Amino acid sequence: MNSFGRIFRISIFGESHGEGIGVVIDGCPPGIPFPLEDLTTDLSRRKSGARGTTPRIEDDNPEILSGVYNGKTTGSPLTIFFKNKNTRSGDYESLKNIPRPGHADFVALKKFKGFADPRGGGHFSGRLTLAIVAAGCIAKKILPHDVLFQSEILEIGGSKDYESILNEAIEEGESLGGIVEVKVSNLPCGLGEPFFDSFESLLSHLVFSVPAVKAIEFGSGFKSATMKGSIHNDPIISGDGKTLSNNSGGINGGITNGNDLLFRVAIKPTASIAKSQKSLNLKTGQIEEFTIKGRHDSAIVLRTPVIFEACAAIVAADMYLIYKSYNTER
Amino acid sequence: MNSFGRIFRISIFGESHGEGIGVVIDGCPPGIPFPLEDLTTDLSRRKSGARGTTPRIEDDNPEILSGVYNGKTTGSPLTIFFKNKNTRSGDYESLKNIPRPGHADFVALKKFKGFADPRGGGHFSGRLTLAIVAAGCIAKKILPHDVLFQSEILEIGGSKDYESILNEAIEEGESLGGIVEVKVSNLPCGLGEPFFDSFESLLSHLVFSVPAVKAIEFGSGFKSATMKGSIHNDPIISGDGKTLSNNSGGINGGITNGNDLLFRVAIKPTASIAKSQKSLNLKTGQIEEFTIKGRHDSAIVLRTPVIFEACAAIVAADMYLIYKSYNTER
Amino acid sequence: MNSFGRIFRISIFGESHGEGIGVVIDGCPPGIPFPLEDLTTDLSRRKSGARGTTPRIEDDNPEILSGVYNGKTTGSPLTIFFKNKNTRSGDYESLKNIPRPGHADFVALKKFKGFADPRGGGHFSGRLTLAIVAAGCIAKKILPHDVLFQSEILEIGGSKDYESILNEAIEEGESLGGIVEVKVSNLPCGLGEPFFDSFESLLSHLVFSVPAVKAIEFGSGFKSATMKGSIHNDPIISGDGKTLSNNSGGINGGITNGNDLLFRVAIKPTASIAKSQKSLNLKTGQIEEFTIKGRHDSAIVLRTPVIFEACAAIVAADMYLIYKSYNTER
Amino acid sequence: MNSFGRIFRISIFGESHGEGIGVVIDGCPPGIPFPLEDLTTDLSRRKSGARGTTPRIEDDNPEILSGVYNGKTTGSPLTIFFKNKNTRSGDYESLKNIPRPGHADFVALKKFKGFADPRGGGHFSGRLTLAIVAAGCIAKKILPHDVLFQSEILEIGGSKDYESILNEAIEEGESLGGIVEVKVSNLPCGLGEPFFDSFESLLSHLVFSVPAVKAIEFGSGFKSATMKGSIHNDPIISGDGKTLSNNSGGINGGITNGNDLLFRVAIKPTASIAKSQKSLNLKTGQIEEFTIKGRHDSAIVLRTPVIFEACAAIVAADMYLIYKSYNTER
Repeated sequence: MNSFGRIFRISIFGESHGEGIGVVIDGCPPGIPFPLEDLTTDLSRRKSGARGTTPRIEDDNPEILSGVYNGKTTGSPLTIFFKNKNTRSGDYESLKNIPRPGHADFVALKKFKGFADPRGGGHFSGRLTLAIVAAGCIAKKILPHDVLFQSEILEIGGSKDYESILNEAIEEGESLGGIVEVKVSNLPCGLGEPFFDSFESLLSHLVFSVPAVKAIEFGSGFKSATMKGSIHNDPIISGDGKTLSNNSGGINGGITNGNDLLFRVAIKPTASIAKSQKSLNLKTGQIEEFTIKGRHDSAIVLRTPVIFEACAAIVAADMYLIYKSYNTER
Repeated sequence: MNSFGRIFRISIFGESHGEGIGVVIDGCPPGIPFPLEDLTTDLSRRKSGARGTTPRIEDDNPEILSGVYNGKTTGSPLTIFFKNKNTRSGDYESLKNIPRPGHADFVALKKFKGFADPRGGGHFSGRLTLAIVAAGCIAKKILPHDVLFQSEILEIGGSKDYESILNEAIEEGESLGGIVEVKVSNLPCGLGEPFFDSFESLLSHLVFSVPAVKAIEFGSGFKSATMKGSIHNDPIISGDGKTLSNNSGGINGGITNGNDLLFRVAIKPTASIAKSQKSLNLKTGQIEEFTIKGRHDSAIVLRTPVIFEACAAIVAADMYLIYKSYNTER
Repeated sequence: MNSFGRIFRISIFGESHGEGIGVVIDGCPPGIPFPLEDLTTDLSRRKSGARGTTPRIEDDNPEILSGVYNGKTTGSPLTIFFKNKNTRSGDYESLKNIPRPGHADFVALKKFKGFADPRGGGHFSGRLTLAIVAAGCIAKKILPHDVLFQSEILEIGGSKDYESILNEAIEEGESLGGIVEVKVSNLPCGLGEPFFDSFESLLSHLVFSVPAVKAIEFGSGFKSATMKGSIHNDPIISGDGKTLSNNSGGINGGITNGNDLLFRVAIKPTASIAKSQKSLNLKTGQIEEFTIKGRHDSAIVLRTPVIFEACAAIVAADMYLIYKSYNTER
Repeated sequence: MNSFGRIFRISIFGESHGEGIGVVIDGCPPGIPFPLEDLTTDLSRRKSGARGTTPRIEDDNPEILSGVYNGKTTGSPLTIFFKNKNTRSGDYESLKNIPRPGHADFVALKKFKGFADPRGGGHFSGRLTLAIVAAGCIAKKILPHDVLFQSEILEIGGSKDYESILNEAIEEGESLGGIVEVKVSNLPCGLGEPFFDSFESLLSHLVFSVPAVKAIEFGSGFKSATMKGSIHNDPIISGDGKTLSNNSGGINGGITNGNDLLFRVAIKPTASIAKSQKSLNLKTGQIEEFTIKGRHDSAIVLRTPVIFEACAAIVAADMYLIYKSYNTER
């Protein structure tokens, strides 16, 4: 469903080409200054405009619908809404009978019986991650002050030096995927609630709600499958749990261990490409060649690092609140 | 926490060396014959005994504590309990001050303030996956009859032909990780509830609750990050949504698309090894050499395929119940 | 928290004198025409204007923020927003140090550390029930066509003929409480999920979220405590479960039994009265006499019957969806 | 479903005449001595044996299935199981075609399609409240030390002096209902999470899961409907929120206000009576006279006060944990 979290709980709504995108943040503590300067920073990190991103540029100006009074959050649900402005929905009319490969068009048609909003992917659009970024900014205000989020794109289209490969793809009307790594430092030891709410479980849950994600790995990840136990085990070297290596990615037994949280996410190439493609025309029953108009990112991965930081912040904040509920006196 | 699912909801309890391991299955439909023959089959697939698995052999005989009457499930919570019998807890006494690397010992100590049951990993033990396998068997009885689960180990210790490498590791007192692939055929199109309860989100959530999992990927997974959009997109070729390729892994926009569900899981080498290791003695403050006694799997991955099938079945059953609630007449 | 429901799930936000009041309806089926004519009807039943209700009149015009396309719901979250227009917040300034008796002022101050929006009760205001009424209209579209909701005010200020007593109270600057009865006919037998999600449990949960509710009873209610078993038991007289009497109020064992659902709710007198009162001035530490300005209902009960119908509809719709998930073929 | 709570979360299972009754307590803090002496006390308060209660006497000896190590809770799920011993299921055979009036027989038959365990009411039995009492004992260990629970039976069969009326009813083969009042002192101000998780919402949710409950009221309850606002409002008289009167029942705006929590519950007369009754024989289609054998309480209300205390404790503990998560430093 469209809610996530236990105590710090977000509910998301909206469509790519509808009125806008919004998020209701329940369990938002009182007294956080709002609008946040950090929010502007994070939203701009997600913005399009750079080479390889869509020419559709939205101002992403957050409107507050509830939960703020005298410039501070009140403790009641905080609702942030981003109006859609720069939409060109006519672009989608021509494809209503041809479900675009790699998109949710076909499943949306089946699941919602023809009533789903098809414009720009509707509710399936990556534009909804705007709400995740906004919630992530609030989440960061719940965590201890020294928790530090960092992220980087490790590679695009298989290349670590990816400027030229990206230009080439754009010229071909192609798209590219990539890999993002996120590191979170200074998280308290003890976050995560096994058996089912392991930190990895919650974080992967949220990360896979971001469109285009195909894989996630923590610490040594897939490489761990090739390692021997004596190499993989991280020896503990100090009383606060610091380890010599970090194959665990900062988590043991589903619980943060006080070392850096480390995870990597694989993003597929944007499904919308300028090049012509083939797919079934549901009306004619024929496989037809077609071209997607619209405006799209050639490498959506470019805009995602801040989104995965936000995912980590949202999960960490929720788990931190639960942690505090048990780590204080009766 | 220790519950998972929305309508088909499982709650897990127990410890490796305590009374036993159990699962309460809420939302279990009435009329399923129990005990299930399939349950015996699946439990035996998870069992130890083969080369590379632990010499601790439990009979894993399911006791029914509730929810069955006249040999059929009643619709009330079904509780299955597996008594622990073959425990040798003395093995763990010598290590109470040295948190074992790669294990949850240190985080458990911190989070549960010294009260956690340390014997055999306590509640963190892989033995709890017994409950997941049992729940998976019930889940399969909820799904359409033709849904088919298959799984295989793709590689161990980095090798596809892994008999010799496994023997070698056992002799060295080492452990190995591996990769498991699961394929589920004939799932209905339409399972999964975006935005946050995408099928990948729910499945990864459950899979990462299984101890030793380090990574998960769907369809093209990490490889997608190196592919171009025109290659990655799966062209639709028939009215029921069948696609020519299956880079999507059977999911678009978080919703099953009617093609095979396909995912791979990376398992780290078992943290317990026979070889001596080094870690901090919390009492002396010194880094000490020590050896884990106990009885352990050299390659726990060998016992996991049926567990990941169960994970897929549990998620699919829950999503299928929600799907049915909307796909029937008022 | 600010969400309610399992599959048909509503999230509420907003304040009495802020931007407005809204509701996100998750699990809203696709294809419902929107805006609904029935919504206008129900909203007008909740409106003020009649004698005994507040002179603050809002147009309560629903704005759609998401989930509707081409005049029909899409299956994605439906967000309805009601802008506040007719606010006079200056009325509340004079009381910021005197928590009004019978109101949430004191607890809000403590719980939200002085950051809560105090204007018109902020998030605690009865104005949020607007969102419940809106969600109730959608819920009714999920239930079978013949389900029928009826409600009436049984008494106000202890009197069944309450016109004169109400006029008297208004002249005195007083307020009055009352009792509302709701009857829902033709609900399917089988709604409710014991042990904890009995139909009464869920309905009372939602009803007690409505401000000013002090009590709820089902069927014979408090009177049952004075009856003998042979009188109280409802004899079954037909194969569809119809009973001769209806002391059960349409529910046995927490599950609807096919007879009329019947419950009564007690509403306290509106806490805001025109008459002068005494309470503690938190700043001076003295008990002081004061008068509430603002604009208020003398008998808020007058506006509530449609709200409790909505509560019943929301719970019934959610339980009906779960019911359908189990009452259909594999 | 069969789980209740957010952080302190209980899952209940079992049947009246099956293997037994159990509860899994998730979110149970580590370090609580177990078995608890208080548990024995509370369980004995719920026991039968006194005049007006059933002659079926169970020893109610709690078995620990998980979550305890070295005599203390571990922080992992605590599972308590009560074996059924004193069952006489033959008593129920004769009534399999006649759904007993006032019982869940008919709805169970329809909802669970004939598979429900009919013996002694199966999962619908009041015997499951044993699990609530056990969970309540743990909950009390989470709350501040000075929180005090008291309860009393206000009346039975409409009489405050109810010894004679009870004896009379027993002789007639009748049953009686009654009213229980619970008072909880010294709860912190600030428990409860509006809008939907008001303290009354959560408590009524849990209370209505107890079989035979027909009504609940807080503070002035139904009487509030007859009062004027100036009388009903509780004037605040000290800086910690103490009020002169307590019509609020210790809750304003859904949040505890620091005064005594006060609520009353109406219990219907036990549905099983010794006297002969009439109901439909589903097989013959005739209304027939029949007698319930089994062993039953004439006034089940006698055994309930400790159950409602437990309900209050469970809700308060859960809300207290959430309260602490927000009332501590970043």
